[in-house]
Amino acid sequence: MEVIVRVGGAGVCGTDNNIQSGLANPTPKLPYTLGHENAGWIEEAGAVAASAGMKKGDPVILHPLISCGLCKACRTGNDMHCISSKFPGINTDGGYAQFIKTSVRSVIRLAPGTDPVPLAPYADAGITSYHALKRVASQLNPGSTAVVIGIGGLGHLAIQMLKALTPAFVVGIARSNAKVEFAKQLGADAAFPAGKDGGVKDVLDFTNGVGADAVLDFVADKGTPDNGVKMIKKGGTYCIIGEGGIVSDPTIDMIVRELNIIGSFVGTYNELSELMELNRMGKIKIVSKVYPMSDVVQVMKDLKEGRVLGRSVLDPWK
Amino acid sequence: MEVIVRVGGAGVCGTDNNIQSGLANPTPKLPYTLGHENAGWIEEAGAVAASAGMKKGDPVILHPLISCGLCKACRTGNDMHCISSKFPGINTDGGYAQFIKTSVRSVIRLAPGTDPVPLAPYADAGITSYHALKRVASQLNPGSTAVVIGIGGLGHLAIQMLKALTPAFVVGIARSNAKVEFAKQLGADAAFPAGKDGGVKDVLDFTNGVGADAVLDFVADKGTPDNGVKMIKKGGTYCIIGEGGIVSDPTIDMIVRELNIIGSFVGTYNELSELMELNRMGKIKIVSKVYPMSDVVQVMKDLKEGRVLGRSVLDPWK
Amino acid sequence: MEVIVRVGGAGVCGTDNNIQSGLANPTPKLPYTLGHENAGWIEEAGAVAASAGMKKGDPVILHPLISCGLCKACRTGNDMHCISSKFPGINTDGGYAQFIKTSVRSVIRLAPGTDPVPLAPYADAGITSYHALKRVASQLNPGSTAVVIGIGGLGHLAIQMLKALTPAFVVGIARSNAKVEFAKQLGADAAFPAGKDGGVKDVLDFTNGVGADAVLDFVADKGTPDNGVKMIKKGGTYCIIGEGGIVSDPTIDMIVRELNIIGSFVGTYNELSELMELNRMGKIKIVSKVYPMSDVVQVMKDLKEGRVLGRSVLDPWK
Amino acid sequence: MEVIVRVGGAGVCGTDNNIQSGLANPTPKLPYTLGHENAGWIEEAGAVAASAGMKKGDPVILHPLISCGLCKACRTGNDMHCISSKFPGINTDGGYAQFIKTSVRSVIRLAPGTDPVPLAPYADAGITSYHALKRVASQLNPGSTAVVIGIGGLGHLAIQMLKALTPAFVVGIARSNAKVEFAKQLGADAAFPAGKDGGVKDVLDFTNGVGADAVLDFVADKGTPDNGVKMIKKGGTYCIIGEGGIVSDPTIDMIVRELNIIGSFVGTYNELSELMELNRMGKIKIVSKVYPMSDVVQVMKDLKEGRVLGRSVLDPWK
Repeated sequence: MEVIVRVGGAGVCGTDNNIQSGLANPTPKLPYTLGHENAGWIEEAGAVAASAGMKKGDPVILHPLISCGLCKACRTGNDMHCISSKFPGINTDGGYAQFIKTSVRSVIRLAPGTDPVPLAPYADAGITSYHALKRVASQLNPGSTAVVIGIGGLGHLAIQMLKALTPAFVVGIARSNAKVEFAKQLGADAAFPAGKDGGVKDVLDFTNGVGADAVLDFVADKGTPDNGVKMIKKGGTYCIIGEGGIVSDPTIDMIVRELNIIGSFVGTYNELSELMELNRMGKIKIVSKVYPMSDVVQVMKDLKEGRVLGRSVLDPWK
Repeated sequence: MEVIVRVGGAGVCGTDNNIQSGLANPTPKLPYTLGHENAGWIEEAGAVAASAGMKKGDPVILHPLISCGLCKACRTGNDMHCISSKFPGINTDGGYAQFIKTSVRSVIRLAPGTDPVPLAPYADAGITSYHALKRVASQLNPGSTAVVIGIGGLGHLAIQMLKALTPAFVVGIARSNAKVEFAKQLGADAAFPAGKDGGVKDVLDFTNGVGADAVLDFVADKGTPDNGVKMIKKGGTYCIIGEGGIVSDPTIDMIVRELNIIGSFVGTYNELSELMELNRMGKIKIVSKVYPMSDVVQVMKDLKEGRVLGRSVLDPWK
Repeated sequence: MEVIVRVGGAGVCGTDNNIQSGLANPTPKLPYTLGHENAGWIEEAGAVAASAGMKKGDPVILHPLISCGLCKACRTGNDMHCISSKFPGINTDGGYAQFIKTSVRSVIRLAPGTDPVPLAPYADAGITSYHALKRVASQLNPGSTAVVIGIGGLGHLAIQMLKALTPAFVVGIARSNAKVEFAKQLGADAAFPAGKDGGVKDVLDFTNGVGADAVLDFVADKGTPDNGVKMIKKGGTYCIIGEGGIVSDPTIDMIVRELNIIGSFVGTYNELSELMELNRMGKIKIVSKVYPMSDVVQVMKDLKEGRVLGRSVLDPWK
Repeated sequence: MEVIVRVGGAGVCGTDNNIQSGLANPTPKLPYTLGHENAGWIEEAGAVAASAGMKKGDPVILHPLISCGLCKACRTGNDMHCISSKFPGINTDGGYAQFIKTSVRSVIRLAPGTDPVPLAPYADAGITSYHALKRVASQLNPGSTAVVIGIGGLGHLAIQMLKALTPAFVVGIARSNAKVEFAKQLGADAAFPAGKDGGVKDVLDFTNGVGADAVLDFVADKGTPDNGVKMIKKGGTYCIIGEGGIVSDPTIDMIVRELNIIGSFVGTYNELSELMELNRMGKIKIVSKVYPMSDVVQVMKDLKEGRVLGRSVLDPWK
């Protein structure tokens, strides 16, 4: 089932900064290679991969987990909940390297001639946004409103997906003015600075006091959960994708407003396939910039300090 | 659309004690009549009700809200979210009285000859349990486990419904030994005293460490939300029906376990109709005891002090 | 509940020609007024309507059925299956008239200042397309293909809705070259003349031999069902909206391909509301041309002979 | 991925008779071994199976298809639509033999000590009934009616499953009086002989003229589709599991009644797992009788001539 992939690009994610800062739990054993958003070209295809038609040079993107294919989760398509998975760049060596060993189960071939390098962030930022969108999409009808909190690597894709796949009005909320503007450029119907109340008043005003049908919170830290829950309408859904904070709500409010608070984790292999189709159709466009691996320290620092629009990608061959 | 109903029985709910204690928000204006679980016989049917075939003497049970039928919520069947509803016994006069005025939209006729009196608690305790069950039922497959926290007026019905309508193993959790035993008599596959950890260890043991697919929390107070969230498996649902406490969880846990925390509120008219069919088929049996209205003080006290198995019903004609 | 509406426009539907030709079953009793796609302005609002804020001059579009609001179908939102409905223009007098009497339950108010006249066809052609789309939308993911058979009053809207609300590739099939071109102008990714095989080969070629995920057949006559069923992929859905023919398939094919053959009928009040929101957002645009009522004979003839692009609307005041 | 299974029992299915009669399409090349319903014990576990904990002597039941685990169908759990599957006993050698070679992906381990022999029919008759049930279950609420046409190897399980997993009234229809009685013994609320009209009048009478919410047709031949479609209520579903006939309906009827006609094919690995759990819980009980392999000719003849109640199983070691 094994496949060796020549890494073309490895996306740089906030999680990488957390791991480096020692915030990961458990802490990985050193030496250890970061990188869980990987794309490139097949270098060597094992027997199963070869019989599936994979061959050296095929451009590919990798599902972030290596899943077993046999457990119940895998057999319902929920690869990310595989009970015996490995997660390269998280709990085993990842893609900040020239080659990575993965499984045929993680490989998605791209159309011949595709440049995989700038697409690497779809492998995690993209799939994670898309999976969250899928969890709330059935609630988004014409006239609905969806809010995206955090317009970074994930949020900038979520705005585009919401516009491409649902009829909802899309509202972006970000800390910096640059990202508020970025949200609008990406197609948001409105975008507001988080300000003091995290955008609650702006969202309520935008929805005539009713609240949003769905809130996708890509921050989920520093008070955004408190504000996110306040923005939802009766029967609406607050979907958590970020991490760091705590979500809480009085049970009386949960029942009277019949709220849904849900977590969303990575996504399935099939979802990543669909996402690459959306990209190929031009319905979404990743905003990514490629740097040589030697810039890794600066690139990670830029991310931590909020200076990245979209996503940065490291090219280990430069 | 009006219908006058001769009240045969009015169920006594914990909410009635809360209102009496001044905990309702907003506090109702006095004088005020409690009673939001009502059944009886049609006394007088207005023109619309008469043309729908309703007539004096028909045994009936009442959907707890009086809904408009015209707002978006009503027109999707979610009567309980009607934007211009009245809730007799909550925000207008209720059924601790010999007659109650309601709307044809709230009336469900029972099979001819049915004694409506002991069935009154289905009108709120029943529908609220059933609606919660409907919200989680799609997750309950053979081999799944559902937990019911709180074996009172609602929980004792939830256990029966779960056994009748799903293939899940059902686990009851209660404070008192009497209610632990009651849960078993009602068909629970296992029942545990809440103990120090609210039953978390017992549920994890029962599920081989995996956790429950769904937890229905009819208490949602005094720490049960903390424990309820701990009992759920990856991708599972913690459903809140009780009130009083606060639910909270770190966002990292919400995403890694892909949890769903949802509130459930009353239920729809169609759900109450289905419930009466379940009762008629003998698939569920309400445990209720009827008292004369003159016993109201004692009955409400017994409920507050946890001495009621199932539900008490007041008969305003005795 | 009554409302008198001054008819601004009444859409002309193929069903009108069928009724006039005596094909309706049962045949309406003469004298009788056609017209089941109506929009205009409120002329007089009854008490319930007035208390809901409706007043003379409000631009409105009418749900095609007058539903009771009390039966099980109405109470789940399926107004079109109301067991005691009237269907003006089908089984009672319709909108080829200066005024029409309807119920508050059928009235959807448009944004102030909206010209309702050209929008009339949304009342039936629009809602019927939208309801069919809703029935298949969950199967349409990135990379899916949806086929629209018949690019007339309904099909020309279906193409736009599919493009606006789903990521599917959309293929149109029509008899005339003019309508094949029309389909492309409306946004279809491809459009083919029905030809000898009803477009089966073209659809299979377009989908690399796999077949379409969903086929919406707005003709459902003259052999289109046979061809429609052949175009579907394993697990796909053939949705019937037109009428006149017979659908049939060997049961062995139904099971091996796990096909779904479904009928779709009109749509709900809430769906018409959503549709008007889609129109307001500019996501779909009806192609309609308004004629004075005196042109009715010619307009109906043009429709019968396939010379109408989009929909014709009669203005009873001209 | 390979596993050698010592066959304990192989169920005898009507399809076996069809293959023997030369009705299969394509006809299998001789020599060829029948048997697509197999259970037994692991004889030898390959490396992957061994690492998953499988070992010689484990009692097992086999998913009827050998699926790849890599195609889109497999990765959404729909193993039976695997694009590169083998189907032992259908298109490759099956289980009328002492040993069968299969894949770890097809093996479901039973509880230690379970006798797999009489359970063999769950592998196809069981899973196929269960999958069909899953396709219609969401439509079956208290007060609903489900009809089972054909009370044979599949139908006798469908009746039990419907009673165990849904609140619907269950009606059985069979040709012979013995099977009508069998249906009642299995828990059907009513059972009728097919008679001249295939039971249409009886079902309409049972449902007060409304029709059934779902019809599961395990015959789907000799006119049952015509009758099955007539029995359904508005919005109901006619589900085809048998084969041989043709289903057909005028498109006008499909739309006005908004019917759903669907095919159902085998089932997923996870569904077979759930089914074995249902069996273990005692919620369903297969009626099967075990014969030595030397009786194969008589057993297949008995089936063809309608003399089998439940299912016959061949033991290749006797």
